[in-house]
Amino acid sequence: MPGALVELAERLQGICLGRGLTVSLAESCTGGLVAASITDVAGSSGYFLGGVVAYANDAKEALLDVPAAALAAHGAVSAQVARAMAQGAQRRFGSSLAVAVTGIAGPDGGSAEKPVGLLYVGLSSASGVDVRRLQLGGDRQAIRHGAALAALEWLVDAAEDARP
Amino acid sequence: MPGALVELAERLQGICLGRGLTVSLAESCTGGLVAASITDVAGSSGYFLGGVVAYANDAKEALLDVPAAALAAHGAVSAQVARAMAQGAQRRFGSSLAVAVTGIAGPDGGSAEKPVGLLYVGLSSASGVDVRRLQLGGDRQAIRHGAALAALEWLVDAAEDARP
Repeated sequence: MPGALVELAERLQGICLGRGLTVSLAESCTGGLVAASITDVAGSSGYFLGGVVAYANDAKEALLDVPAAALAAHGAVSAQVARAMAQGAQRRFGSSLAVAVTGIAGPDGGSAEKPVGLLYVGLSSASGVDVRRLQLGGDRQAIRHGAALAALEWLVDAAEDARP
Repeated sequence: MPGALVELAERLQGICLGRGLTVSLAESCTGGLVAASITDVAGSSGYFLGGVVAYANDAKEALLDVPAAALAAHGAVSAQVARAMAQGAQRRFGSSLAVAVTGIAGPDGGSAEKPVGLLYVGLSSASGVDVRRLQLGGDRQAIRHGAALAALEWLVDAAEDARP
């Protein structure tokens, strides 16, 4: 796994184990890269409960309770779907924190309205749910890597801020 | 992602797209590494529906319908649980093929009966479900890599043999 991702995963693990927090994931465009980075670190089972890699829209509905209406109205790459994915993962896994990533990794699938590299990251915790919009550059590998970095960085910040 | 995994994922994608097959995953010890390898390849959304990274036992029950009795009687690293995980993923995602991986990546968690490197891989398809037991050597990274290779190799073979 790329070193920068594993270093962030090690930081996240230290904070979560120290504060008694658990984490789950809902990944679309990163396709398991965040989970693979987290579980690359020995001892990650102490705080990481699991994740759903929801590549197909049906999987987002069936396994993360994303409303079909949100997918139809806003598309899979949208703030509404990122929010629902994060909430769905937190509820399904019963974790303290859940992060969701949906975006267009390319090289295909982009449009004028939603170009390749567009990304929505959602974070759900006891404090509620929030969504960030990012526009990343580079090729498919760079976008997936950048998306996973953004997700892990937000998890680290949220774990530091979380109510114990 | 490691090149050998991505090369296998490219082969799998070619076979599945050519034969109209879909794939889903249930990962425990590989922790998303199989999903991340598959989705590293552009166009993987054409056949890959998604996966569940079920690190905690509760997640294996809630998201993959693994019977609590099987977990209690045989443990998470067992042929019975690998079989149930594969069947659960195939049913939840509605895929042609589903592979499941459960094992002990280490360095902790091993015992005399179930040493580090012990691995069960399950594969579910229209032909039924089958389980293989492997004993891998090496450190955590080598075991996770070897487990992901075994899962992808079996998927490639199963996709070649699957009824169209």
